[in-house]
Amino acid sequence: MAQQTEKAKAKLHSLTAALESGALAQVRRILNSGLAPVDIAHLIESSPPKARKLLWELVDKELEGEVMQNLSEELQSHFLSDMSAEEVVDLTADLDTDDVADMLQQLPERVTQEVLESMDHQDRARLEAVLGYPEDSAGGLMNTDTVTIRPDITLEVVLRYLRRHKSLPAMTDNLLVVNRQNEFIGTLAISKLLVSDPQQTVREVMSTDARVIQATQHESEVAKLFERHDLVSAPVVDAAGMLLGRITIDDVVDVIRETADHSLMSMAGLDDEEDTFAPTLKTSRRRAVWLGINLLTALAASAVIGLFDKTIEQVVALAVLMPIVASMGGIAGSQVLTLVIRGQALGHLSGSNFRWLFNREIMVAAINGVLWAVVIALITYAWFRDPAIAIIIGAAIIINLMVAAMTGASLPLLLKARGIDPALAGSVVLTTVTDVIGFLSFLGLATLFYL
Amino acid sequence: MAQQTEKAKAKLHSLTAALESGALAQVRRILNSGLAPVDIAHLIESSPPKARKLLWELVDKELEGEVMQNLSEELQSHFLSDMSAEEVVDLTADLDTDDVADMLQQLPERVTQEVLESMDHQDRARLEAVLGYPEDSAGGLMNTDTVTIRPDITLEVVLRYLRRHKSLPAMTDNLLVVNRQNEFIGTLAISKLLVSDPQQTVREVMSTDARVIQATQHESEVAKLFERHDLVSAPVVDAAGMLLGRITIDDVVDVIRETADHSLMSMAGLDDEEDTFAPTLKTSRRRAVWLGINLLTALAASAVIGLFDKTIEQVVALAVLMPIVASMGGIAGSQVLTLVIRGQALGHLSGSNFRWLFNREIMVAAINGVLWAVVIALITYAWFRDPAIAIIIGAAIIINLMVAAMTGASLPLLLKARGIDPALAGSVVLTTVTDVIGFLSFLGLATLFYL
Repeated sequence: MAQQTEKAKAKLHSLTAALESGALAQVRRILNSGLAPVDIAHLIESSPPKARKLLWELVDKELEGEVMQNLSEELQSHFLSDMSAEEVVDLTADLDTDDVADMLQQLPERVTQEVLESMDHQDRARLEAVLGYPEDSAGGLMNTDTVTIRPDITLEVVLRYLRRHKSLPAMTDNLLVVNRQNEFIGTLAISKLLVSDPQQTVREVMSTDARVIQATQHESEVAKLFERHDLVSAPVVDAAGMLLGRITIDDVVDVIRETADHSLMSMAGLDDEEDTFAPTLKTSRRRAVWLGINLLTALAASAVIGLFDKTIEQVVALAVLMPIVASMGGIAGSQVLTLVIRGQALGHLSGSNFRWLFNREIMVAAINGVLWAVVIALITYAWFRDPAIAIIIGAAIIINLMVAAMTGASLPLLLKARGIDPALAGSVVLTTVTDVIGFLSFLGLATLFYL
Repeated sequence: MAQQTEKAKAKLHSLTAALESGALAQVRRILNSGLAPVDIAHLIESSPPKARKLLWELVDKELEGEVMQNLSEELQSHFLSDMSAEEVVDLTADLDTDDVADMLQQLPERVTQEVLESMDHQDRARLEAVLGYPEDSAGGLMNTDTVTIRPDITLEVVLRYLRRHKSLPAMTDNLLVVNRQNEFIGTLAISKLLVSDPQQTVREVMSTDARVIQATQHESEVAKLFERHDLVSAPVVDAAGMLLGRITIDDVVDVIRETADHSLMSMAGLDDEEDTFAPTLKTSRRRAVWLGINLLTALAASAVIGLFDKTIEQVVALAVLMPIVASMGGIAGSQVLTLVIRGQALGHLSGSNFRWLFNREIMVAAINGVLWAVVIALITYAWFRDPAIAIIIGAAIIINLMVAAMTGASLPLLLKARGIDPALAGSVVLTTVTDVIGFLSFLGLATLFYL
């Protein structure tokens, strides 16, 4: 009920208060009295490092697995590293195969082996099936909890068969139809099962045009398929068409969320696993790398300015105005860059329409270049009463906006073709180009005129 | 089947070729021969303006509704504006209530009224229920296609009742249990229905702790609920607890996608409805606004530099080095800004842990400030052989990184409290601060020393 969300919020509040006052017994009581595992995980993630460890230790043994599953990969690996193989096996006993596989991938190879060895045969076989595929492939995302049926039985028999189960796996919207060789041949939607004549056979009712996913497909392809066809679950097969498992929408939602997060964070040079509450030193180290890379681009810009020190000495107004040229280029370029990166992500951009887009961006840059060149030239003239410098800055603005558009439009494709993530590297490269071209065109033109 | 995706891709290819060569009859044939509506919509969105109109006109009448539903809001409003109320009614006849409501919201009020008046009574009543709520609320997101049952019947009766349907609405994972007054009292999962004894009553088997959504809740709350509890659908009620409809995961996925998109696009000053293939003039106008805003911040920075023209005239190295100070501050600040904006979006940040985060960011800025101050001071000394300027730039870097961290951390909360979108305004304000403080500290310290 909606009230329960309110209740959870109230609990979280009193928990935070108890934590701050150090009343541990109270913290433990609130933590394990009906707070959902996902809420406990959320609370742990929202806490500073010290409180996190404390909270994790206070979680009831039976809840540990589900709480762990809802934590970020970084925190999983942090807590798992303190546990023995035995403890990990206990913790993961009741979880979905794909979630256990994700957790094990946070562990060192040696521990993963130990954990696999302490599992029973069936669990181990399932887990190894998932672990055999990369984490970001359909195989790594799938679950092995399928409900399979044969095509030649009647729906009546299917209904009786289902009634022998205590429950069906979560998000079971389809029963998967396989032949004796376990080859996938179709799906029977349970909503279809409910409205059909029980005397019909599965073969008569089943759908054979279901979206089937190859285990080797990339998770982003899987997400597109789910989004475009409004799927709740989809079967996963190997190259020979044998059924391996299924992927459910809840895991796909995580992929969508993480992919979007990745673009946003990458553009600021942050890791998408970057933890809001990571300790100071860890954070400092990560940020330092990006600042170092940025320093190189800033030095490149300074080197360009350094070429023209004689001109600046003569006309100090150039030093006052030059950041405007670089900055306008950077802004214009990053708009194009972001639009193209999003177009790539949505799958809107291909060879044939890219040419159109590129031409449009040149046109837009020309229009806005002329518009803002005039505005900035007028401001410059009003400020310094020097028509030459007004014309020079106007020309430099046009040049830099055109170069910015071309760079912003083509950079994502160039980077992607070289296997570099455009969201991560795009803005650094773009800023370097717009800074260098901005200073070069403005100070270069000024030097031609004044010296 | 996976092959079908391949087939669709091949079709898209030949379609593009036919379009480019102007073979319209061929385009129409390919377009309407089994290409899924979502693929047709995707094709239209991936085409430049002229081809779009052409393609839309070639779509078969029966497919128009589903194709329209998959288009972006901007394109919907574009195509709908050319249609009569009659045509809109025909087009929307077979669509879900929430999708029709979304489309109608793209129309002028007058046309919406006309469309509503030409509908039959039941459709109209349903639609008005949805239209009565804001587009970004649970009520605006909901569908009215619920399958409801009473609590006092047996599962046997439920099964017979369902068999009278030709099909169940898409994504029906739960039957909704209501009393005579249509008050919501619980859910019966159809997977539960399948595994339970048919002689039991609905009341005995139903779940009463389902997540219920208030029609007035914001869509972002709805998305969080779905994500955290892995829901496929959830009932929507009014303030009195009466069942109004249900929300399904496919619509929630759209909300998640759009929200993420919004953050990414806003940070570059782009509208999230910004269309990759919008015409040149429309694009130019939109971009011009952002460039104008940026010009104001660039002018502020120039004004600061202008205060120190005498110092620069004397020591030109200052002009060469000053962009480094501004740029390092901008990068450091935007990392903090992005992290905090994401923390807000994930709901990780509240008053109590914000203080911790703020302190950590100060520490990180101090550590990286000192580190990069030393590096930059050494580079500066090696370049200009002037110990004074090396010490001055080091000090300015430390000051600017500290200010950047404080601004980046607190800005999102300040803006949000004033009802301003941090993703949109955050980076402009931040850059203004880091530029101004960067130039002010560096040139100010230099002036104290040299003049």
